[in-house]
Amino acid sequence: MTKPLISLAAALALSAPSSAPLAAQDAPVGAPSPNEIVEGAAAEEWIAIPAEDLLVMTLAPATNGSERKVVIQLMPAPFSQGWVENIRTLARAQWYDDITVNRVQDNYVVQWGDLNYDNPEADGEPKLLPEGVKVMDESDYVQRVPEAEEEQAGRYRLIDSYAEATDVKGGFPVAQVGDFWWPVHCYGMIGVGRNYSPDTGSGAELYTVIGHAPRHLDRNIALVGRIIEGMEHLSSLPRGSGALGFYTDEEADKRTPILTVRVASDLPAAEQPHFEFLSTAGETFPRYADARANRRDPFFIVPAGGADICNIPVPIRRAGE
Amino acid sequence: MTKPLISLAAALALSAPSSAPLAAQDAPVGAPSPNEIVEGAAAEEWIAIPAEDLLVMTLAPATNGSERKVVIQLMPAPFSQGWVENIRTLARAQWYDDITVNRVQDNYVVQWGDLNYDNPEADGEPKLLPEGVKVMDESDYVQRVPEAEEEQAGRYRLIDSYAEATDVKGGFPVAQVGDFWWPVHCYGMIGVGRNYSPDTGSGAELYTVIGHAPRHLDRNIALVGRIIEGMEHLSSLPRGSGALGFYTDEEADKRTPILTVRVASDLPAAEQPHFEFLSTAGETFPRYADARANRRDPFFIVPAGGADICNIPVPIRRAGE
Repeated sequence: MTKPLISLAAALALSAPSSAPLAAQDAPVGAPSPNEIVEGAAAEEWIAIPAEDLLVMTLAPATNGSERKVVIQLMPAPFSQGWVENIRTLARAQWYDDITVNRVQDNYVVQWGDLNYDNPEADGEPKLLPEGVKVMDESDYVQRVPEAEEEQAGRYRLIDSYAEATDVKGGFPVAQVGDFWWPVHCYGMIGVGRNYSPDTGSGAELYTVIGHAPRHLDRNIALVGRIIEGMEHLSSLPRGSGALGFYTDEEADKRTPILTVRVASDLPAAEQPHFEFLSTAGETFPRYADARANRRDPFFIVPAGGADICNIPVPIRRAGE
Repeated sequence: MTKPLISLAAALALSAPSSAPLAAQDAPVGAPSPNEIVEGAAAEEWIAIPAEDLLVMTLAPATNGSERKVVIQLMPAPFSQGWVENIRTLARAQWYDDITVNRVQDNYVVQWGDLNYDNPEADGEPKLLPEGVKVMDESDYVQRVPEAEEEQAGRYRLIDSYAEATDVKGGFPVAQVGDFWWPVHCYGMIGVGRNYSPDTGSGAELYTVIGHAPRHLDRNIALVGRIIEGMEHLSSLPRGSGALGFYTDEEADKRTPILTVRVASDLPAAEQPHFEFLSTAGETFPRYADARANRRDPFFIVPAGGADICNIPVPIRRAGE
């Protein structure tokens, strides 16, 4: 029996690697989907992510006892390196161990940190920061990107509501005005909690985006990376009933404990995750981006004729799979 | 003690009505936030939503026994009225009662319907549609909007990655190319599952957006409304482990039952919810939209200088509160 639902699935399949076979059951022949284009990329178009740039964050097990691991990719140079260095130092000092998820605001952010800092109702003193971790200032929000990199990545320009242009650099979505580029707040990106300017935070307080891209935060809060696996362990957490989605003390049991956060390169070899992202310099990425902006696979009637940078997520996969 | 977190909260407060008092604790004096601007709107700038346009969807209680109600606003004319009429008919025939949420795909959609239609693993026959419900065609995807309405709403234009212009009409976000306008896939919007074109679905299968706006679906799937209360009951559901986020039969217990879906005007007066939205024709909306595009409240350093239509959500509130 034909299952029309599967056709809807085909239309809604963009981010589902396994969509192609499913859709194929009753799909008319048509142009390849973005995922199918990526599956055809040559091995050399995939760039390994250094283990130094990966964090493994282990949450307390789910109520059914299942493991909850989140893998974070830290942002490469030239962006946000002051905060990124702080975050490696905090992870290696095991400062993040036993902090909690304290805020879940629908269509906005999940935020984790020290409950005595990260909680409007707290009255205790915050944990001290380890040696070498310093609160940053604004100088690192935007970067003049070296020529070479700009040539390497500058394969396409998209109309954007927030900048003169957007692009992908070092595997991360970025936006530009004049000579300056900055990383943007797409779904799953990780930012740094801060006090009022000129204080721009240390990296001890972090949040990730769980809704529509809050691009107004670009250049106002430092972005330091993104979640590349296990996002669902954060995005599906119960929303907080307090102001801004904070958990109130009455719902303290909803605060998910973070057991450990480790730099992947510090883990035993057998436990180290290995990921790679699709280069923008190869022949596949521009075709993938074009297919995201103009869906021509069977389900679609009217290609959009454009896309915002957060709807062209850089393909990332586990290495050797 | 100063709680820097509260300052971060101020920055991340856009969608939190109660943010202003919180932020005020240690916020420097500055321009009002978008929420503060909306709080200053005159009573006559709020437009009541007809009870005929509201659906109350009651999910099975949460594991802790708490009630889970979702309020849906159906789209007003001239958009999608064929599907909207089908949906009222389906609700009044109690067709939606005892269907389930069958798919939750992270950063994409939550989808509910008949498990024998809405499930790649099903082998039973789908429920028959009630008298008067017909599968629609493509003619209703875009609308030439009458002059008067266009003048009324045409207060601002925003650069958009997907259209020549975007705006708000009848309280809903819309986009335009040439003479034609269509509603857009923002967070919380509700769309209609369909088979391959020219079949565009009946309204028996519905989904809502739980991630970054999938604007490539605009003009390809009919949008029929949005969730205006209780979104968190859907967005925080566990993600499905099957292809496209469908729950597999091994995780059948994750399929949330939908107990009833009722048109609000059919409910006893005491149970009818009352909502209103902020008119775009008053003096407040343009100031609110400008403040969303250029945050000048204390936390911000660099106003974005723009916003996409999905980051200017139309303010909606319970009436008389």
